[in-house]
Amino acid sequence: MIKTAAIIGGGVIGGGWAARFLLNGINVNLYDPDPEAERKINEVLGNARRSLPALLDYSVPHEGTLTHVTTIEEAAADADWIQESVPERLEIKHKVFAEIQQHARKDALIGSSTSGFKPSELQEGASNPTQIFVAHPFNPVYLLPLIELVGNAGTCARAKDALTKIGMKPLIVRQEIDAHIADRFLEAVWREALWLVKDGVATTEEIDDAIRFGFGLRWAQMGLFETYRVAGGEAGMKHFMAQFGPALEWPWTKLMDVPEFTDELVDLIASQSDKQSGHLTIRELERKRDDNLVTILRGLKARNYGAGETLVEHEALTKPPLPTDITKPLRTLDRVIPIDWTDYNGHMNESRYGQVFSDAGDVVMAMIGADADYISSGLSYFTVENLIQFRNETHPGEKIVVFTQVLQAEGKKLRMYHDMHRANEDGTPGDLLCTCNQLLVHVSLETRRSCEPGGEMAEKMKALHEAQTKLPKPESMR
Amino acid sequence: MIKTAAIIGGGVIGGGWAARFLLNGINVNLYDPDPEAERKINEVLGNARRSLPALLDYSVPHEGTLTHVTTIEEAAADADWIQESVPERLEIKHKVFAEIQQHARKDALIGSSTSGFKPSELQEGASNPTQIFVAHPFNPVYLLPLIELVGNAGTCARAKDALTKIGMKPLIVRQEIDAHIADRFLEAVWREALWLVKDGVATTEEIDDAIRFGFGLRWAQMGLFETYRVAGGEAGMKHFMAQFGPALEWPWTKLMDVPEFTDELVDLIASQSDKQSGHLTIRELERKRDDNLVTILRGLKARNYGAGETLVEHEALTKPPLPTDITKPLRTLDRVIPIDWTDYNGHMNESRYGQVFSDAGDVVMAMIGADADYISSGLSYFTVENLIQFRNETHPGEKIVVFTQVLQAEGKKLRMYHDMHRANEDGTPGDLLCTCNQLLVHVSLETRRSCEPGGEMAEKMKALHEAQTKLPKPESMR
Repeated sequence: MIKTAAIIGGGVIGGGWAARFLLNGINVNLYDPDPEAERKINEVLGNARRSLPALLDYSVPHEGTLTHVTTIEEAAADADWIQESVPERLEIKHKVFAEIQQHARKDALIGSSTSGFKPSELQEGASNPTQIFVAHPFNPVYLLPLIELVGNAGTCARAKDALTKIGMKPLIVRQEIDAHIADRFLEAVWREALWLVKDGVATTEEIDDAIRFGFGLRWAQMGLFETYRVAGGEAGMKHFMAQFGPALEWPWTKLMDVPEFTDELVDLIASQSDKQSGHLTIRELERKRDDNLVTILRGLKARNYGAGETLVEHEALTKPPLPTDITKPLRTLDRVIPIDWTDYNGHMNESRYGQVFSDAGDVVMAMIGADADYISSGLSYFTVENLIQFRNETHPGEKIVVFTQVLQAEGKKLRMYHDMHRANEDGTPGDLLCTCNQLLVHVSLETRRSCEPGGEMAEKMKALHEAQTKLPKPESMR
Repeated sequence: MIKTAAIIGGGVIGGGWAARFLLNGINVNLYDPDPEAERKINEVLGNARRSLPALLDYSVPHEGTLTHVTTIEEAAADADWIQESVPERLEIKHKVFAEIQQHARKDALIGSSTSGFKPSELQEGASNPTQIFVAHPFNPVYLLPLIELVGNAGTCARAKDALTKIGMKPLIVRQEIDAHIADRFLEAVWREALWLVKDGVATTEEIDDAIRFGFGLRWAQMGLFETYRVAGGEAGMKHFMAQFGPALEWPWTKLMDVPEFTDELVDLIASQSDKQSGHLTIRELERKRDDNLVTILRGLKARNYGAGETLVEHEALTKPPLPTDITKPLRTLDRVIPIDWTDYNGHMNESRYGQVFSDAGDVVMAMIGADADYISSGLSYFTVENLIQFRNETHPGEKIVVFTQVLQAEGKKLRMYHDMHRANEDGTPGDLLCTCNQLLVHVSLETRRSCEPGGEMAEKMKALHEAQTKLPKPESMR
């Protein structure tokens, strides 16, 4: 478990690492000699704060503390994880590693964000070589789960364990190779794209469209091989390969060649890119990208697939415990309003209040034992009526808290009253936003008809009824 | 406007074309000599029916009629669009085009699904060369919007217009080149991937993970260049290029080489793919893929970005008109329940009923003039109370219809009662699923307080009130 991380180099990548750590409750010591470092990191952090917490359906832990330090020694001395994200020049990296290893604990993990260097290259001349490994992230680091780990097997296993706990998807690259795995594909596509632009076949915008309206959508969930397996249809992978095998001999890419990297080519691409995206600032583009990614990731989470499965697993690891004190109103939900819950008015769509109350009701059901196992045993609760009263608007990024009082828990019936408030900084409830009077009925999933719950659940219902109906009615209900 | 399409070759790609046409209300003549063709096409069509209609927030038009024909003549004679999807061998394609052109109308569009051939190659020896062009789709054709069009400028412009009307995103490739644009990238990645598997660096599963947990998520919304523009941060595209320019000289891909396509390599990849995905049948994988794609596409639609923007534009073209007869209950919504609306019980989540009623209420608001323009003028309606009563379960893929009756439209207040029914095959309402008594209040978006509507809207409110409150109360309300 990482408690303190040192970030050496706070650019786009280092800043992304810092945000990922901080928003998972880890303290960060940041070292970057750039006088603009503090401003830059705050902007990355601002982006991360408006997107990462919204990936989960409950509030993330308190943020870690960010400390700007002026030496590598201060950054590294007490760190469990030290992440190097300095420019892609081996002599600079060697110098930084030497200084880190002079001050770091022997059991600290020292990861490098390098896109291309192999661990054996990074480790050259190091006092403790196996401590240094590749931990290659993908921008934006606070949202994309993939991390390529390359290096000593024991070190990588420890790193994998630590990163899994902060919601990442570590991929151990078993054999070191230039540019690891993912960047080899990116480099191949980049080289091909440079040719197409240079030869005037396509503009940057046409190339982007050729990607994002087609195979990019496939690759956000299945990769290359699983997609092709499906494309092979019933005849399968071998059929697909037989069909496209001959193309390996055909000039379907410029693979054999590398375009010359001239100023002219750089200007051509920069000017096409300006034409394509220049109407938006980088910050605006970043926000659009992050909102899109949050939407895609949350969608995949509901499907429990790909990067969505990583989120499901992360929630299982970090989900807050159920309320245990039933003698007071139950604090059933603490969460941030995600971007995909808003509508054209710019505020949370009315239907999503229903989602909040559905989730709050699920917590009470879990308390009485109506969880996933219970449902797969063939019994569940269905909602039969919701009276929702909207009091105040809610906006994306806001923290909310829901208090639930059980009004009736007898026989087949479970009636709850939910108060949804804006959450103050200290977690106490602020403005009342919405209320819901919700009636659920216990059903058999086989007959799809109502029936009485039995055994342990009946006892828990009874205890809940007795404890909660004694309480005064919620203020908003009176 | 295409009324009849001929599909020549009904495999995975041809079947996908057929489904895209049929579900957009276009009749299809299908020619495929494979004795299994009818079964195969029905399976593709089954997949398409459970995913494509759910992309839109209203019901798609009636399906076109599918006719299996036994000759190319029968398929092509009355078709506006003829799509060739036969095996990737030039002599077969030439033979097919000759037969098509013998029977087709002179103004028919003749597209080829070829992955690699250039239009000049396809047109060799044709009686009417400019009629033949590349219309290269991406699997699954019924969900992915991209179509690469290559060929005569006038022909491609007509093809682009026709495809836009059925929700596709045509990309005109201005200069013919082997494998067009997108497949050049796919081929580069494929070759690199074959090397990595052959050399034992990574398995098919590791490669898929390196894609779908990282850059695949980026490419589902922004492409290569826009992503890198953002990655360059404030310093922009030139900075990014300067940073990664030198890598062009480094061995970051195997670009220079092509692996030999041996049986051994095919077996290695097929066995790794079996290990990765063999626990699921191709049909199961297809459904997972389609559910994922529907989720991603619908998510991007809410963001009005990338492939989601294509859906927004398609909806604008095809959206049904507002109800005009206010002397009876208003038919406010006809739609299919999408997969992303379901929860762990396997039925539509309770919050999504709120979405249905929110959308139905929006129709009434549009009728009185409270549309996007009105909202940008600083006025809108906010919902203050919903009483939702759940009567029956609803499942993904089901068609529903909502009838709305205005109970009050006076001053600031707009009260509506919505009845949501399962829709019968003929569009008449079936089982009652849910009802909603909804109260909205007219507000100033500036003060965020209620205020009376004026002018034309006040008159429309009055007319609606008079016509609707005369009607008997909805049966479910009595």
